[in-house]
Amino acid sequence: MKARIIIFILSCFSAQFLMAQHPSLILTKAGVEQMRREGTKSPLFSASLNEVQKEVDEYIAKGIKVPVPKDLAGGYTHEQHKSNFLMLQKAGVLFQVTGNEDYARYIHETLKAYALLFPTFDRHPSERSYAPGKFFWQCLNDANWLVYVSQAYDCIYDWISEEERNALNSMLFRPMADFLSVETPQFFNRIHNHSTWANAAVGMIGLVMDDEKLVQRALYGLKSSDLKSTQVDNDGGSILQEGQEEAGFIAQIDFAFSPDGYFTEGPYYQRYAMYPFLIFAQALANKKPDLKIFEHRNGLLIKAVYALLYQTNSEGEFFPFNDAQKGMSVYSRELITAVSTAFHYGHKDEALLAIVVDQGKVSLDDAGLEAALALEKANVKPFVKPSIMFTDGPNGDEGGIGILRQYANKDELTLVMKYAKHGMGHGHFDQLSFLYYLNGDEIIQDYGAARWVNIEQKSGGGYLNENKTWAKQTVAHNTLVINNASQFGGNVTEADKYHGEPYLFNATDENIKVVSAKNNQVYKNTGLHRSMVIIKHPSFENPILLDLFRVTAKGQNNYDLPLLYQGQLMKTSFDFEVHESMEKLGNSDGYEHLWNEAEAKLTKGTSQMSWFSKNRFYTQSFVSTAKDKIIHARLGATDPEFNLRRDPILITRRTTTGNTLFASILEVHGAYSTVSEIATNTYSQIQQLEILRNDEQYSLVAFTHKNGGSWVFAISNNDNAAEAKHEVVQNGEKFAWKGSFHLFDQSSNQK
Amino acid sequence: MKARIIIFILSCFSAQFLMAQHPSLILTKAGVEQMRREGTKSPLFSASLNEVQKEVDEYIAKGIKVPVPKDLAGGYTHEQHKSNFLMLQKAGVLFQVTGNEDYARYIHETLKAYALLFPTFDRHPSERSYAPGKFFWQCLNDANWLVYVSQAYDCIYDWISEEERNALNSMLFRPMADFLSVETPQFFNRIHNHSTWANAAVGMIGLVMDDEKLVQRALYGLKSSDLKSTQVDNDGGSILQEGQEEAGFIAQIDFAFSPDGYFTEGPYYQRYAMYPFLIFAQALANKKPDLKIFEHRNGLLIKAVYALLYQTNSEGEFFPFNDAQKGMSVYSRELITAVSTAFHYGHKDEALLAIVVDQGKVSLDDAGLEAALALEKANVKPFVKPSIMFTDGPNGDEGGIGILRQYANKDELTLVMKYAKHGMGHGHFDQLSFLYYLNGDEIIQDYGAARWVNIEQKSGGGYLNENKTWAKQTVAHNTLVINNASQFGGNVTEADKYHGEPYLFNATDENIKVVSAKNNQVYKNTGLHRSMVIIKHPSFENPILLDLFRVTAKGQNNYDLPLLYQGQLMKTSFDFEVHESMEKLGNSDGYEHLWNEAEAKLTKGTSQMSWFSKNRFYTQSFVSTAKDKIIHARLGATDPEFNLRRDPILITRRTTTGNTLFASILEVHGAYSTVSEIATNTYSQIQQLEILRNDEQYSLVAFTHKNGGSWVFAISNNDNAAEAKHEVVQNGEKFAWKGSFHLFDQSSNQK
Repeated sequence: MKARIIIFILSCFSAQFLMAQHPSLILTKAGVEQMRREGTKSPLFSASLNEVQKEVDEYIAKGIKVPVPKDLAGGYTHEQHKSNFLMLQKAGVLFQVTGNEDYARYIHETLKAYALLFPTFDRHPSERSYAPGKFFWQCLNDANWLVYVSQAYDCIYDWISEEERNALNSMLFRPMADFLSVETPQFFNRIHNHSTWANAAVGMIGLVMDDEKLVQRALYGLKSSDLKSTQVDNDGGSILQEGQEEAGFIAQIDFAFSPDGYFTEGPYYQRYAMYPFLIFAQALANKKPDLKIFEHRNGLLIKAVYALLYQTNSEGEFFPFNDAQKGMSVYSRELITAVSTAFHYGHKDEALLAIVVDQGKVSLDDAGLEAALALEKANVKPFVKPSIMFTDGPNGDEGGIGILRQYANKDELTLVMKYAKHGMGHGHFDQLSFLYYLNGDEIIQDYGAARWVNIEQKSGGGYLNENKTWAKQTVAHNTLVINNASQFGGNVTEADKYHGEPYLFNATDENIKVVSAKNNQVYKNTGLHRSMVIIKHPSFENPILLDLFRVTAKGQNNYDLPLLYQGQLMKTSFDFEVHESMEKLGNSDGYEHLWNEAEAKLTKGTSQMSWFSKNRFYTQSFVSTAKDKIIHARLGATDPEFNLRRDPILITRRTTTGNTLFASILEVHGAYSTVSEIATNTYSQIQQLEILRNDEQYSLVAFTHKNGGSWVFAISNNDNAAEAKHEVVQNGEKFAWKGSFHLFDQSSNQK
Repeated sequence: MKARIIIFILSCFSAQFLMAQHPSLILTKAGVEQMRREGTKSPLFSASLNEVQKEVDEYIAKGIKVPVPKDLAGGYTHEQHKSNFLMLQKAGVLFQVTGNEDYARYIHETLKAYALLFPTFDRHPSERSYAPGKFFWQCLNDANWLVYVSQAYDCIYDWISEEERNALNSMLFRPMADFLSVETPQFFNRIHNHSTWANAAVGMIGLVMDDEKLVQRALYGLKSSDLKSTQVDNDGGSILQEGQEEAGFIAQIDFAFSPDGYFTEGPYYQRYAMYPFLIFAQALANKKPDLKIFEHRNGLLIKAVYALLYQTNSEGEFFPFNDAQKGMSVYSRELITAVSTAFHYGHKDEALLAIVVDQGKVSLDDAGLEAALALEKANVKPFVKPSIMFTDGPNGDEGGIGILRQYANKDELTLVMKYAKHGMGHGHFDQLSFLYYLNGDEIIQDYGAARWVNIEQKSGGGYLNENKTWAKQTVAHNTLVINNASQFGGNVTEADKYHGEPYLFNATDENIKVVSAKNNQVYKNTGLHRSMVIIKHPSFENPILLDLFRVTAKGQNNYDLPLLYQGQLMKTSFDFEVHESMEKLGNSDGYEHLWNEAEAKLTKGTSQMSWFSKNRFYTQSFVSTAKDKIIHARLGATDPEFNLRRDPILITRRTTTGNTLFASILEVHGAYSTVSEIATNTYSQIQQLEILRNDEQYSLVAFTHKNGGSWVFAISNNDNAAEAKHEVVQNGEKFAWKGSFHLFDQSSNQK
């Protein structure tokens, strides 16, 4: 029966022209005219077009392949369907811009093959996903497919006959839109990057087919679904967020972002979601201008692009907190679209053109053309990323992240401290953790995700077991682990209920930049308060990073403060006892993945460890007590599939009763060249670091330079008002300041 | 008494001019004239001059500092004296080229300070060297000092008065020349890079002072010294080589190099020695042209520069076999001088100018000027490094190294196999080991030396204990370890007596390049024969590396074949048992530094392991037997000072009786981008690898491609004649070929 219908439909297929109303999704008639007319005036646009044409021509020459789905990510059928949708979208653009009907024919033939394949099976044979897809193992990839293919379809919509259109619409596109929505509500109706793709997919094909029902479904979600709040996805994230009452594309914009444009899942997934956000928004801007989608929430989608750009290191790589593959950057295809879109639909901000120049290509659409043409006239200046705080939560009152940037010589130092929401299924238990960069190089790393995206050998390209057992655990981050247990007991649902509390963010003084935040929920009856200060002073070769991590607790606890430094250990002020055989550090919460390489008992005073990485020296100086111990751990235990990197981790371990303070200074110093073999400033400049006071009201630490300089940093722990006046007498000396913190230069007093 | 003499001498110091006969060492009157006249015509020369001037001006502005010697390498006094000599040399050039007397005054004042310091103490207080120095902990650095300072002195020789000259000559330079020679014969009279510096130092100051006695001593060594053949240096190298009868600079050229220009200590030390070789040779060419030093041994010194350039990877980094710090490259100051010198005193080979362009600077002398001016007129083409074999030994009959280069797509694959002499105190026990590069990246590494040169924290910048216990040991190399013992029992004196035997080197067929060598001395009563073949065939994405390592032995032995791969393990065809706790692999010969991470028992057939490194995939396919075991080891055990990198090492372990053959194929395949997240060709293309025959006469191996291709590689094991005809019948199939090896394409037979 099914076969007979297909034969009937195919017999109706033939190419003919209709009244031209397409393309109108991403490309527009006027835009295409302009591309043909002015595209050649821009070397960048021409080059982008030529590159795409070469790529697509080579792909078409290999023949159309629409295999029966079978593989996971990285496997043949997965990669083939993925390449197909990327190439179809590009072929659509090429058809419009060049007028060469070969591209249209390629698209039409491929879509017919998909139309024939679609009804022949139910869902993908793999059962690994909470929402198994059709052509792919998860609906997410099918939504990707439809977002891209809608654009291709839009480009040939008027070129094929009405009968052909009806056939494709009814055999492939409407069923697929239903499949991704009403048939898979757990995928469609969430506040999550997955649903953003789903919403955009359904909405875009709806716009192409002028199917208002689909468009409304995409914008406002399923009216009713029997989703339960206890359902979770593959990553342990809840399908329904607590209190969630809305769904659909508009709800994604309203609830997944803070007013600043920060996306609660973090930059790696924001980058991923940004494409459907912006591409569907472009389509809506073209087809439903009354919706004023780019003005929604004070222009939130444009702000979100800036938020993404600001959440990168000097090389344009996104901060890899939460689940994130390192190396993802502003050079990704999503950001190439995003930057042009932000230029075109935003404020024509010429600063963005510097990023376009770095990217070296533009998207082949109205926005890309405008950016490329603007580049020809603009005086492009570097894109400056400020020290900036981003709030989290739809109302901007659920924690956030603080980014401090400081410059010295030709270097950029970038600090990121995280006190945002957990970020749902892709979140890590990393409250008050930090990342620290010297230019594009990690000084103190976030491990990122334990995953090789799309590399089939490694668990089908999906998340590895070690992502849960290691990468998400607290000990995998640069923040305090209490009694060897991860924050929130490693429970996502629990973690999703809370967020950190911003205490201070101040980067107005070029020489003292501070980010400070608290969290009293991660461990029961325990207050955590971390303040990180980048101090620039001519006595020091480079800015130094002062870190004060306060704990308010009762009874005896064990505190582990991991430091995921990158590099090779040079020298320590204490004597490591290096183990003759290596045991793992524990049995759960990530400790089972750490080898205990070496241990040292510390003494009261200032302890130091130096290391070397990429031709620079680093020293961590920290206040130690006679009860402290230090462990040099090495990642890689309990790793049957060799999934983990063998990174070093320094753990300061303190067992103590009541409140305590971890104080340290991190220096970047000197340089070395394996060519000149000249080493400079190989030693720390810190002589001593000392805690003068630490209580509910104030923390005061003193530090001295080997050349005699001496400073006291004071911070109020419970009053962050800028106008508040403070006065502390310590060892007979009076410290008075205004605002919540101050750095006292004591150098002259010493004489 | 001493003080009175000094005062008397100093009272004679005053600046006045004499008849101008200097400079004549490296700079010449005519050359200086040309620099002034034509230097500005070359942007490169001007830039080099400006850079030096800026550097020297900044240095002089800090004031003259000639501290009493105290520190080891990396320490203050060491680095200060080192900077002094580098800056003095440059200041001399600046004085000559600019005529600015400030530079001459700076040199003169500094030399006076040295003259005052020199007689006030005996040798450097450190007792770590077999030849303690004066201003430095070892004479080697003092010889460096004199090589550079002689040039500075030459530049102001005519500018100061005769009395001033006499004072410096008698108070500083003659005593220093004697100190480095007659007073330290164990340093001066060797065939070794140390003595090259010593000879050049004494010879150059002799030329400046027109002291023919010193020059003769430098050229031909001490006539008599009471050195004993049992004396060794800090590195365990013999002071006297067996049969050594000559010493001095000419003997260095005659005995340290093979006729090809290969230096027996390896490229890292050749680079280091090249400066005194060439700079003293330049001085001799200027002052003693009748010696025709650059024509000596058929222009050996120029050949040696080419040999150095050929012993680099695609990034210009020297192959780090023997004691060598990785990263040392053609960008070093020694090579900047060397390349210009080879251009000027060699054949004006324009190919060298491509290296000059990469270096971006030239030496400020006649040679540098000529290279810089030539660059302005030349049509610079890339410097092509050939597949090439270098012989070792003064007569070229003591083994050597084979370098194969192959190109695919935009990549260069470089293989180096070593069967040279041991290389004295800096040699490693690495006969028949290999290195393999993809462009500048190590696929299979040589560990290099365990040392941070000039970084004081790490054992004063000198060799670390682990250099001896790990880096030199056989298990630290990609070659066979028999019965867990290093080659030659780890004895340098024994190792120095032997060398490998070249068997084949053939790179004439672009698609099959072979290097093959034997060594029957490294283990008693054991024959080793390794053949490495780079095969380029359109069936494979990239050229593949076939490795056949034959052992001829009696009785039962344990064989370990380490592979120091770089990257992260992806997938294995066998099941690793990963250890719950880690023990070291042994107690000596380097095994004490290896953790036993995981083990697997192999089965008979083809085993495979894939790994990932810098966005490329690699697979090692190898023939395994049911008696084989594989160990995944991790470096870093028994490392109390954290001196070792945590590199992975794959060890194939086979316990067997009689002869055996290790056969493997190494593939580079596919690519991955963390930005596009697209992975291609992540799997090996090898289906099977099988040994058809292995005996005294022949080895035959068969391998198949997953797409059905099939090949047999045959090699004669005891007849390397190019004209020899061979015929083998194997499983009823006849293989006939001419020459010692052949690759039979069986693909068509399979149909």
